[in-house]
Amino acid sequence: MTPVALFDRPEYELRLRTVKSRMGQQGIDTLILTDPANMNYLTGYDGWSFYVPQAVVVSEDLDEPVWIGRGQDGNGARLTCWMSENAIEPYPDYFVQSEVRHPMDYVAEVIRKYRLDRGVIGVEMDAYYFSAWAYQRLQAGLSDARFVDAHLLVNWVRLIKSDQEIFYMKQAGEIVTSAMNTAMGYIRAGVREADAAGEIFRAQIQGTPEVSGDYPAIVPLMPSGVRTGAAHLTWVNRRYERGDAVNIELAGCVHRYHAPLSRSAVIGRPSDRLIDLAKVVIEGIDAALLVVQPGRLTEDVDAAWQQVIRRYGYAKDSRLGYSVGLNYPPDWGEHTASLRLGDKTILETNMAFHLIAGMWLDGYGLEISESFRVTPFGAELFANVERKLFVLDDQDDVGGTEWRLSLSGS
Amino acid sequence: MTPVALFDRPEYELRLRTVKSRMGQQGIDTLILTDPANMNYLTGYDGWSFYVPQAVVVSEDLDEPVWIGRGQDGNGARLTCWMSENAIEPYPDYFVQSEVRHPMDYVAEVIRKYRLDRGVIGVEMDAYYFSAWAYQRLQAGLSDARFVDAHLLVNWVRLIKSDQEIFYMKQAGEIVTSAMNTAMGYIRAGVREADAAGEIFRAQIQGTPEVSGDYPAIVPLMPSGVRTGAAHLTWVNRRYERGDAVNIELAGCVHRYHAPLSRSAVIGRPSDRLIDLAKVVIEGIDAALLVVQPGRLTEDVDAAWQQVIRRYGYAKDSRLGYSVGLNYPPDWGEHTASLRLGDKTILETNMAFHLIAGMWLDGYGLEISESFRVTPFGAELFANVERKLFVLDDQDDVGGTEWRLSLSGS
Repeated sequence: MTPVALFDRPEYELRLRTVKSRMGQQGIDTLILTDPANMNYLTGYDGWSFYVPQAVVVSEDLDEPVWIGRGQDGNGARLTCWMSENAIEPYPDYFVQSEVRHPMDYVAEVIRKYRLDRGVIGVEMDAYYFSAWAYQRLQAGLSDARFVDAHLLVNWVRLIKSDQEIFYMKQAGEIVTSAMNTAMGYIRAGVREADAAGEIFRAQIQGTPEVSGDYPAIVPLMPSGVRTGAAHLTWVNRRYERGDAVNIELAGCVHRYHAPLSRSAVIGRPSDRLIDLAKVVIEGIDAALLVVQPGRLTEDVDAAWQQVIRRYGYAKDSRLGYSVGLNYPPDWGEHTASLRLGDKTILETNMAFHLIAGMWLDGYGLEISESFRVTPFGAELFANVERKLFVLDDQDDVGGTEWRLSLSGS
Repeated sequence: MTPVALFDRPEYELRLRTVKSRMGQQGIDTLILTDPANMNYLTGYDGWSFYVPQAVVVSEDLDEPVWIGRGQDGNGARLTCWMSENAIEPYPDYFVQSEVRHPMDYVAEVIRKYRLDRGVIGVEMDAYYFSAWAYQRLQAGLSDARFVDAHLLVNWVRLIKSDQEIFYMKQAGEIVTSAMNTAMGYIRAGVREADAAGEIFRAQIQGTPEVSGDYPAIVPLMPSGVRTGAAHLTWVNRRYERGDAVNIELAGCVHRYHAPLSRSAVIGRPSDRLIDLAKVVIEGIDAALLVVQPGRLTEDVDAAWQQVIRRYGYAKDSRLGYSVGLNYPPDWGEHTASLRLGDKTILETNMAFHLIAGMWLDGYGLEISESFRVTPFGAELFANVERKLFVLDDQDDVGGTEWRLSLSGS
């Protein structure tokens, strides 16, 4: 079986060296990674197998990371990882959802086999797929080790992307552009929400003639009508009606790298309060993006945004954005740098963020966002969709023509 | 805001009473649920917000379950839960991905507010979204309580479905039938895998003219060619070729209730070894389904399967199936009863299973499955797709006509 090489081997080796160096700084001898994105980052492993416990082990004493997963996923590891056969350690199926055994018992066994069970072991204490019980089993199986929290250690290494990673994110940007345009071209009064969602999914997955879309880590979020006051609702079994507001948040994804994007739309005539909100939000985003350049702080980006919306009497207490890139469900965010007050990450070239100006007010809301990377010349957007409140008119039945109200604040 | 009632209030009340009764039997005063499916089961809450910590609290001292989640998801809770406003407890955004605070600190605060912090507290120790760190924060915030493992307590209550739940699963069965037929009608030599995947997604989401599809908890798994030897791979950026085998595993989903289905196909002429394997697998599934009726054990179903495949010299060391129903990513399985040796769950009417005869051999593999519910008259299938190895001929370019080799073992 020939592995699919998404990155050159030197890139994987550089990632590994960087992680080992951080481990050294933090006094960690062995790292047990359970976050699927971190596992992928260091090994290339890609499969929808994170519903069972699995891990990647990194140690200064090991030349390669070691992949440990379910037996039936061993072939998947051989097909997607860059390491040698020795570094693939599948566990028997009787560890799966058993009342007497846990896959982390097997992970402990592998660590003992490599004689890594006496030093300091780092685990990702707050990672999605590292359960309280998984931790207890590891502790029980490795009682001579000292455990420390290494949550986000690899995530922070992921913060600055390589050119190849940025290349995939730009491809994802092309896909999200197509998916958002599909949404705005399809949604009108009388259309079922699920039919619009289905068209959007198809655009996300079919991608472009050159590039296949991967599944994004979050499904399209697209609350409409009264549901726009809620941030994370999907489609329901109803037809759009004239007067509906629709918030759409979705991503393009290529080889697990994401470019998310949000736009809001109104079917028919938008209310004055929504038009007013959109103007302010767009002006705020323009101001925030202008701040982006190497050397500025993440909180500076938020401050520019806050200054604009405050001037118009609005407030937003949730953060303005977050680092984005490689990920798996349930989230495309990297959980490291945020665009918010108090976050003092220094911007560097090839960091990438999703700046999402989501305003969820009482009974209505609006979301407009951009994904971008930091360059020496400022923010470079991944998507290319007009930054405005979309007004989808349903008066002209022929061809679903769309009439757009220009609201750009710039 | 008017909640969408997917179930009558008496059904939610019955679920709550059943859970409280099990808590009583296990000496649990307060239950903190973090599994999104269990949260939904008791409250109706539905939103893609499980990427931040959230919980539902159940106690004999509380009339209603209490939903605790992120501030911006409070409106989503108000729109989807059956409880009163008092039972919605949103936390401020400064708890999100903070280095100094954790949402579980807020959960502990709510539990103290209700004076539930001195008894026995059950937590779901091995649930996906209950991290090791979340557990430590809860323990720190509720130091007078005694914690016990209540993992799967609610999952076991979910094992036997109500008629309304079965109704949604039958609708999901119609959708998976349509999605699988879409796949088999679209895949042929020269088609890009992602284009097929996009059509499948669209069929899953657009559902039927009457019923919208919800997003399934797992994306379509559809390894082809050499990748069919791996269980959990998705599509890649390639075109199908004559001679490819394709394994497709996907689900229809309605209101988070799943009907999964697998079929395998070959583009062109299947190899003799694959034809042989398919015959055996189909005969094994037929034998297993015949065993299903109230009073039989889950392991009896597996035994009937094993007997057939052993006679032909095959072996399968992973389980034959598992309980299925309501769920969220990353899994549609319920993690309770399995169809496997040693599992002695007694079958009852309205239990539902995904019986998946997946064989992953060296360099090739095959998957044929059925979802069914138990009835007094035997297994009732949710989907209606011919049980066979599909042979997709690409000779006839007009209309993508499909030529099927009948291999039914019955």
